[in-house]
Amino acid sequence: MLFILQPLPLTLHHWINLKPVLEALIDRGHQVTVLVPSSSLFMNASEPSRFHYEPFNSSVPLEVWEEIIEEFIHFSIYEMDYLSYIQIHIKFLEIAKKEVKFTLQHLDSMVRSDTMARLREGKFDLMLADPIYPGSELVAEVLDLPLVYTLRFSIAHTWERLCGQLPAPPSYVPGAMSKLTDKMDFMDRLEKISFLSYFIITHCNWHLVLVICLFCIMPGKPTSACELMGKAEIWLIRTYWDFDFPRPFLPNFKFVGGIHCKPAKPLPEDLEEFVQSSGDAGIVVFTLGTMVTNMTAERRDMIASALAQIPQKVLWRYSGEKPKTLGANTKLYDWIPQNDLLGHPKTRAFITHGGTNGIYEAIYHGVPMVGIPMFADQPDNMVHMKAKGAALIMEFNFMETEDLVKALKAVINEPSYKENAMRLSRIHHDRPIKPLDEAVFWVEFTMRNKGAKHLRVQTHELTWYQYHSLDVFAFLLAVTLFITVLFIKTCSFCIRRCCCRKGKTKTKAE
Amino acid sequence: MLFILQPLPLTLHHWINLKPVLEALIDRGHQVTVLVPSSSLFMNASEPSRFHYEPFNSSVPLEVWEEIIEEFIHFSIYEMDYLSYIQIHIKFLEIAKKEVKFTLQHLDSMVRSDTMARLREGKFDLMLADPIYPGSELVAEVLDLPLVYTLRFSIAHTWERLCGQLPAPPSYVPGAMSKLTDKMDFMDRLEKISFLSYFIITHCNWHLVLVICLFCIMPGKPTSACELMGKAEIWLIRTYWDFDFPRPFLPNFKFVGGIHCKPAKPLPEDLEEFVQSSGDAGIVVFTLGTMVTNMTAERRDMIASALAQIPQKVLWRYSGEKPKTLGANTKLYDWIPQNDLLGHPKTRAFITHGGTNGIYEAIYHGVPMVGIPMFADQPDNMVHMKAKGAALIMEFNFMETEDLVKALKAVINEPSYKENAMRLSRIHHDRPIKPLDEAVFWVEFTMRNKGAKHLRVQTHELTWYQYHSLDVFAFLLAVTLFITVLFIKTCSFCIRRCCCRKGKTKTKAE
Repeated sequence: MLFILQPLPLTLHHWINLKPVLEALIDRGHQVTVLVPSSSLFMNASEPSRFHYEPFNSSVPLEVWEEIIEEFIHFSIYEMDYLSYIQIHIKFLEIAKKEVKFTLQHLDSMVRSDTMARLREGKFDLMLADPIYPGSELVAEVLDLPLVYTLRFSIAHTWERLCGQLPAPPSYVPGAMSKLTDKMDFMDRLEKISFLSYFIITHCNWHLVLVICLFCIMPGKPTSACELMGKAEIWLIRTYWDFDFPRPFLPNFKFVGGIHCKPAKPLPEDLEEFVQSSGDAGIVVFTLGTMVTNMTAERRDMIASALAQIPQKVLWRYSGEKPKTLGANTKLYDWIPQNDLLGHPKTRAFITHGGTNGIYEAIYHGVPMVGIPMFADQPDNMVHMKAKGAALIMEFNFMETEDLVKALKAVINEPSYKENAMRLSRIHHDRPIKPLDEAVFWVEFTMRNKGAKHLRVQTHELTWYQYHSLDVFAFLLAVTLFITVLFIKTCSFCIRRCCCRKGKTKTKAE
Repeated sequence: MLFILQPLPLTLHHWINLKPVLEALIDRGHQVTVLVPSSSLFMNASEPSRFHYEPFNSSVPLEVWEEIIEEFIHFSIYEMDYLSYIQIHIKFLEIAKKEVKFTLQHLDSMVRSDTMARLREGKFDLMLADPIYPGSELVAEVLDLPLVYTLRFSIAHTWERLCGQLPAPPSYVPGAMSKLTDKMDFMDRLEKISFLSYFIITHCNWHLVLVICLFCIMPGKPTSACELMGKAEIWLIRTYWDFDFPRPFLPNFKFVGGIHCKPAKPLPEDLEEFVQSSGDAGIVVFTLGTMVTNMTAERRDMIASALAQIPQKVLWRYSGEKPKTLGANTKLYDWIPQNDLLGHPKTRAFITHGGTNGIYEAIYHGVPMVGIPMFADQPDNMVHMKAKGAALIMEFNFMETEDLVKALKAVINEPSYKENAMRLSRIHHDRPIKPLDEAVFWVEFTMRNKGAKHLRVQTHELTWYQYHSLDVFAFLLAVTLFITVLFIKTCSFCIRRCCCRKGKTKTKAE
């Protein structure tokens, strides 16, 4: 019996990654209960489903979250590019402050809810959760369940490093969202250290807030959120070395990127007809994801006129107003079967906002990309794809028609992009175990063995100065200093004794 | 087509681990060529075999290696326990000096041999080698082949760390052969740092020797042995978290411990009869490995009289002189089917010297152990098993009859030892892919893709000070110091100006 929780509004792309794991577990005879807050953005607990939904009333209404997300997206897409670093940080802290406030309210109402009391009666073997929204570790603690995380990343890998004890030498592990690669020159590494320091400080603040919060919610157990997170048995990280740069990791970190990827299904008849009409030139698939539904007239016209200049047919998922410059080769769709299109033999390129799921589908099918990253992890994701030679990057606010045309022509006509995309595809497919099977294996392992303690490093029991052996080095330094001082003192004492005697002798002689 | 090399006399226990991989590759349609020096201790290149043997004449005769090994074993078993640390190190350095001298001679004759010229003509896809004996990296470089290592460990993990870039924080990763666990107190960590430093210095010396050597052998390519080792695509490490303590590792390090393990086959009739005669008490399996063939009369009598005091029947692999105190329950054998005996339901305990292969067979079948470690990695191996609660350790030179009886009774009668052995067995069996399959997969992957570059961390391109970000920290420190000095100077200048003016005014007033 399994139990999964989304205490905060889970966005669609996280759910796309979690669902295949849950479905595979149900296929294998497990029962899955999904804890859903009333303020969930994308999930409807009253719909018929294979999961048993356990809804609960959150004290924070859905509208609050919608507003925060709306504010964040609008700021990221339209304002951020024109502001200074300091202005951006002030704005982000403002949004984060609001989010933390409501998160605490929400967690409090969750732990005190009748649902939680009912869940205590239920017999669960394990809890699976995405730690990107805090609270799952709290529920696992309350219900005394082994916890398995599924995570794309935390900013600058802060939680993985500080709570999960994942080593990340700043010299070659680019912090998540730093937009750096594993090849960093001196200035990059300087920037990286500053970036890390910023997020460690931010984390400590957040940490402090959550410590106070947890202390309020669970008065008997004064513990920290990080300590609770550190209890996670397995971290299922949703990347692999096709997407991420190779880095050190721990035995309980499993890289299962591409869980949701699957072969393409045949297209609906009308779509197939349009695709086939492209002839040898092929098609381009274009989507900016589910979060961006509209854009300014100027931007959409600019993009449309660029698309009109390429010989390929373009399928553009876009539900906003129709651009005036739309070419005859471009068709707008409210929804497209993205994976089936990316797997179609006529597909030449993918214009994407750079969300992890879309990129993984492109990697799976070996399609080169033009990225127009908008916010969150998207710029960083596209930097990865560009570094691996499978993509070019455009800046949404600053690109012009000719930039987009040039990028599209390069990605479609220069063989290196297709070759690199195919190389990533080979890496993706050529692994000893499929990512979904691996994820399911470790979830079931944790259930079978009530944990996975044999994969847990001893660092969790060390203080930070013990971890870095600072106490040992301090001791060695003290001993060295002591011996040096002793040596110098002894020498100077001897010399003084000699001199004094000479001096005395001299004085006597005088 | 695959190629494996043993330039130096390969001991039997390494061959036991390599052979299943080679056989699995032949089963899958590959051709395997084995490069064998004329001075090989255990392999006979003229025997009929599934491998294609490629023998070559080494300038170092077999007797030299036999003598070195004999000297090493005798010293380790009978002398080491009675000497001081410094005496032990002097002796080891003496043996190592001899070994390095002959290794260089051997490598030189190998690279210049006719066989090597012939191999250059052959079309090989990959080279598989155990780096415990140097030289394979040199051959891979000469033949321009991707290199896959299979390794148990190097002392203090020196090569894995310094050449393979494997991270190993000294605070919780016990150096191989340090006899420490992952739970280290302050004194342990102090000892650990000293142990590491010693081996880094030793390594640097060895390294210097090999740099000079390589420069002589390949004048066109002045490179270091460590640099060549760092080119290895995959490191197949022959442990897993059933045996080793969890630690950080890299994507190209695969932990495939227990490759040679397999289910037990039925015993020969006479053995089965003896085993069955043990009744409910069961049997104890006893071997000190292939390297120890004899022991002093005093030690063998002491051991035999201990074995005579337990209710179990004992099967002792021992080809030396018969002990006078041999009990009726104990039978001596020149050879025993160790794996089949350990997998027998009547087996209660395993008395072992603590070699990796034997321990892995015990883990596979879930048999608790009494370790009598003799030399090399054996003491360290047994410390691992003791820390995991599946074994007790005896000291060969100091144990008395009652100690051994007590240890055997504890391991057989106290349930925790059997439980822990069974827990390790579950961990061993319960993994997503079998160790042999994983090893074969990565060998084939490297052949298919002519390397595994996507698993290679960027650290290989960094200097040691870049790796530790020392240049960045030094820069930040310099900037901080500069600003501080500037601030102090400005302040003192201002103060001085004020004081001077006051002073002048005062003087004038006077």
